[in-house]
Amino acid sequence: MNDIAQANRKLCELGHRILEPILDDKFPIIEIPDRNTSNIEYETSRNRFVLGSSVTIRDSSNIKHIRSFAQLAWVASFAKRLLAASRTSSLRDVYYSSEAFGVNFKDQAESDRIVLDLECITGLSRESFGIFPDEHSSVYGDVQMRYTVPGYSGREIDLTISPDGLPIGPALMTAEPIRTNAEIILAVESGGMFSRLIETRAWERFKAILIQLGGQPPRATRSLIRTLHDELDLAVYIFTDGDPWGMHIARVIMSGSANSAHIEGLTTPTAKWIGVTSQDIEHYSLPSEKMSDSDLKRLDELSRDPRYSSKEWQMHIDGFRKLREKAEQQAFSRYGMDFVVDTYLPEKLV
Amino acid sequence: MNDIAQANRKLCELGHRILEPILDDKFPIIEIPDRNTSNIEYETSRNRFVLGSSVTIRDSSNIKHIRSFAQLAWVASFAKRLLAASRTSSLRDVYYSSEAFGVNFKDQAESDRIVLDLECITGLSRESFGIFPDEHSSVYGDVQMRYTVPGYSGREIDLTISPDGLPIGPALMTAEPIRTNAEIILAVESGGMFSRLIETRAWERFKAILIQLGGQPPRATRSLIRTLHDELDLAVYIFTDGDPWGMHIARVIMSGSANSAHIEGLTTPTAKWIGVTSQDIEHYSLPSEKMSDSDLKRLDELSRDPRYSSKEWQMHIDGFRKLREKAEQQAFSRYGMDFVVDTYLPEKLV
Repeated sequence: MNDIAQANRKLCELGHRILEPILDDKFPIIEIPDRNTSNIEYETSRNRFVLGSSVTIRDSSNIKHIRSFAQLAWVASFAKRLLAASRTSSLRDVYYSSEAFGVNFKDQAESDRIVLDLECITGLSRESFGIFPDEHSSVYGDVQMRYTVPGYSGREIDLTISPDGLPIGPALMTAEPIRTNAEIILAVESGGMFSRLIETRAWERFKAILIQLGGQPPRATRSLIRTLHDELDLAVYIFTDGDPWGMHIARVIMSGSANSAHIEGLTTPTAKWIGVTSQDIEHYSLPSEKMSDSDLKRLDELSRDPRYSSKEWQMHIDGFRKLREKAEQQAFSRYGMDFVVDTYLPEKLV
Repeated sequence: MNDIAQANRKLCELGHRILEPILDDKFPIIEIPDRNTSNIEYETSRNRFVLGSSVTIRDSSNIKHIRSFAQLAWVASFAKRLLAASRTSSLRDVYYSSEAFGVNFKDQAESDRIVLDLECITGLSRESFGIFPDEHSSVYGDVQMRYTVPGYSGREIDLTISPDGLPIGPALMTAEPIRTNAEIILAVESGGMFSRLIETRAWERFKAILIQLGGQPPRATRSLIRTLHDELDLAVYIFTDGDPWGMHIARVIMSGSANSAHIEGLTTPTAKWIGVTSQDIEHYSLPSEKMSDSDLKRLDELSRDPRYSSKEWQMHIDGFRKLREKAEQQAFSRYGMDFVVDTYLPEKLV
């Protein structure tokens, strides 16, 4: 995912597909993989969503297509400029930047959609083109990375340098893992848990690189988890709140989301969700809360989702359906500040 | 704000105030500065909110007071443990930890209120006792800090070490500024603007330490701004979206909030809001959006707020009221990616 040359090549290919018909006095046509639900398939063998073979046509000779055709050409040229200048941009900035070029987007939702079109055409994530959302999650652990961004290229950073963790921004996402003494990656949902695992030196004890997800994590974070897993051969464990939303954070890290069905390199199928499971809530008598209607509705949705078709996941869903209670990962604090580190995690990380 | 000895002393004082009457066979009584609106005053000379002289009584001989009295004693003892172990906790964790001690809080709102009581009694922020919210903002710039947290104590960090910035967490908030080549602090609202100012090396050009506020910033961030301002003698500039909410981010950094009226060391009265002002929106013909009813209502509220009583601030409010338009700081991108760095900021940072 951090191959700038590849991103450049894909953009040039697109440029040629537009330019060559024009030089030939023909109207260029672009095919975009269709990302409607009907064309999103769950590939069981690879345990992830992929796009089917259906495509959408943008025909520049069609007056109804010309607007989105031009917008796409502009987004691609903007991405090319970003790459050439080794710069990044937020999605919000893409929207506002268009005005500098006399390109018109109704609102940011429209420019976001065109960025998604570019992803589908190239099969690369917007992050490969330097386009990021605003939110970050963080990482901490005994691993050396080497930056590739200008001004820092070749410099190494030790991810224990800051006891508050490091944000997973454009620079860290494109950095290369060099070496580690860690044996696992432990991704946790909340910032509170992340801080606790740093302070108690749990990262040392479990030989873990810690990742703070902060809810459903940005794609840069999912990409970093995959990279660390692949390059350093680390097992991945995910520790979230005990509710359908927490469970789904884990599932998306493993199998991806329908929204990213067109992108490779974001999923880590061998990752393991350690909890909080419904059994954990019962077994540890955790302080819990009654599930809301939207929690229960979400469980129903998940039970029909192909990512949850395995026996194990259906069991997790059924467990919550029967219990009708949910618990946060902070709930372990009822047994003292160190219980989660001294008891729960050792029992789970085996 | 990062004086652990002071926090410890304040907790011991409170302990003695509870213990001594008991040893004397009397019911202890605690006085808590009253933080009702009626007791919050705006101190014009210091340009900030402070608490008045009115107090609330918690009398342990009163059956109606005994619950909150006991809760307060527990929160204070929990804070003492955190300090002794050099640990931190999130507000959420305080709530859950209480169960380990058989202390009962109805919900987190109740434990948050008791934490606030402890702040009022001691005049110190919860962060002094190691209690933090989950959210962080970030910092980047040419400044060396020395950590004081265990495991890192004495270690120095250069705040340009990570091109994605560093989170302002417990460790950085309590670190000591050692030296800098910067001359100003430039605090910006959005993550996108923060990244742009790093990438374009604007921090070097303006000799600025960059701070990403991420909306209304956590108190740790306000405390760090004040510390850097005081210790390194740096001027502070604040660059937000052009709307009442952005304006108020700046005003809170300068003069504090009613919620923190009882805490010293969070405000930087000499900070300067550079924009986006209503004049900027007109002068630079920025892409803008019509103000919503809630924006206009907010302007009315601010116009009556004592923090906005100066001629200059009333002028800012009137400007927005007449224009009835708002603009984000990203809106400068309409003039190209570098306009904000090459034109707007040089015109404003004078």
